[in-house]
Amino acid sequence: MPLNWKLTLAYDGTDYRGWQVQPELPTIQGELAAAVERITGERVLPQGSGRTDAGVHALGQVASFVLKAPIPAENLHRALNRTLPAAIRVLGAESMPEDFHARHSARSKWYEYRIFRGEVCPPWTARYVYALHWPLDVEAMRRAAAAFVGEHDFRSFAASDPDVAARGSEDAEESHVRTIFASGWAEEDDLLIYRVHGNGFLHHMVRNLVGTMIGVGRRQFDAEDMPGLLALRDRSAAGATAPARGLFLYSVCY
Amino acid sequence: MPLNWKLTLAYDGTDYRGWQVQPELPTIQGELAAAVERITGERVLPQGSGRTDAGVHALGQVASFVLKAPIPAENLHRALNRTLPAAIRVLGAESMPEDFHARHSARSKWYEYRIFRGEVCPPWTARYVYALHWPLDVEAMRRAAAAFVGEHDFRSFAASDPDVAARGSEDAEESHVRTIFASGWAEEDDLLIYRVHGNGFLHHMVRNLVGTMIGVGRRQFDAEDMPGLLALRDRSAAGATAPARGLFLYSVCY
Repeated sequence: MPLNWKLTLAYDGTDYRGWQVQPELPTIQGELAAAVERITGERVLPQGSGRTDAGVHALGQVASFVLKAPIPAENLHRALNRTLPAAIRVLGAESMPEDFHARHSARSKWYEYRIFRGEVCPPWTARYVYALHWPLDVEAMRRAAAAFVGEHDFRSFAASDPDVAARGSEDAEESHVRTIFASGWAEEDDLLIYRVHGNGFLHHMVRNLVGTMIGVGRRQFDAEDMPGLLALRDRSAAGATAPARGLFLYSVCY
Repeated sequence: MPLNWKLTLAYDGTDYRGWQVQPELPTIQGELAAAVERITGERVLPQGSGRTDAGVHALGQVASFVLKAPIPAENLHRALNRTLPAAIRVLGAESMPEDFHARHSARSKWYEYRIFRGEVCPPWTARYVYALHWPLDVEAMRRAAAAFVGEHDFRSFAASDPDVAARGSEDAEESHVRTIFASGWAEEDDLLIYRVHGNGFLHHMVRNLVGTMIGVGRRQFDAEDMPGLLALRDRSAAGATAPARGLFLYSVCY
């Protein structure tokens, strides 16, 4: 009987062109498919809970796929970690009911964005943070973060994707409404960390929220402007897209 | 008046072909020389306290060079960190008496070798450790480490370099005698760390000591064999060379 597998994955996205498989380019999905095929001989396309962009990391991405041949979970787990590059690790492997799907079954996600505030960013940290030396008004950034909690139209914070536009889905009035359950900044040693939990995220949404809140920290925006920015539903009204290297997909909730 | 500069450097050696400048290849010395030239217009070849091999990291490498034009230390420090790749950081910049030389003035060095012992090695740790899942007899490894303290001929633990042999320096009976002041293993969370302090180290010496002590941990050698291995003065008698990625040049003492 075929088994429906759920994998929990951590990866360093620095050297990958994101999650989604692309011909000739290193991607997480591509590496995972290749490893599964090398181990089982079966060609599958593992489905992720969502795509992560080039350079974005994961502490708890989830992927699912169906394998025809039976294999004990422990063996699949170990064989994958022996076969995958060290930058991609399987943290857990379990077989699920057949209706489980990494993307369709996901109920919410946590993301984390890390800003480094110290004097000199150590070489072993630089791949995983955005190093920012400007003074930042963290209290104002906290007020801005709180303004995103709740159900909002996040069009002002969504990438205006040329490929999406070309497919005509902008015209189709795809919904940009998402619900954010938690949104806040924490200071931990030299790190300033944004943690956000929501039922879904638009393309570049976390990086655009962070880029805009950095603008608040630098007094280019007021924290009290956030509801107005949301209401404008205009990407050009909000701040810059923060670099990919500071972003982690932290966990996916089912 | 020309100033003699001392830089303290940390680097992630993963993506570099070692310290020493090589045409067309990324090296630490090459990146540093390029950054100094971009900032000051002066072409210098920074001298390191010693070469580190491809893939070896540094927490406190030291380099020295002379610049004709005056520049405040703070400005040189900041400009270098703005110009260098994020994998190379300047931790300190100071001007020294003219007889200071990063290599000739060095009195001793500390190295650190990190072995990861946990179940799954996180992607952000994998570049900086040797992940080893075999059972290891750590007490035997501690006894072996203690046997290296003192003045010994370390030929059994020195790389038999083809280029050195070609230059004829093996015939010249170059000394392989070095003094080790401290040598021991520490367990810190998921890491097993070898720390060694000596007045000098032969090429590959730390990695060969570690590879041999891993052999002790796996019961391929006895801890009590170490004095005998030293006495043989034969590289083929000792264990394998441990991978570069676990090795850090920790500090240089003057």
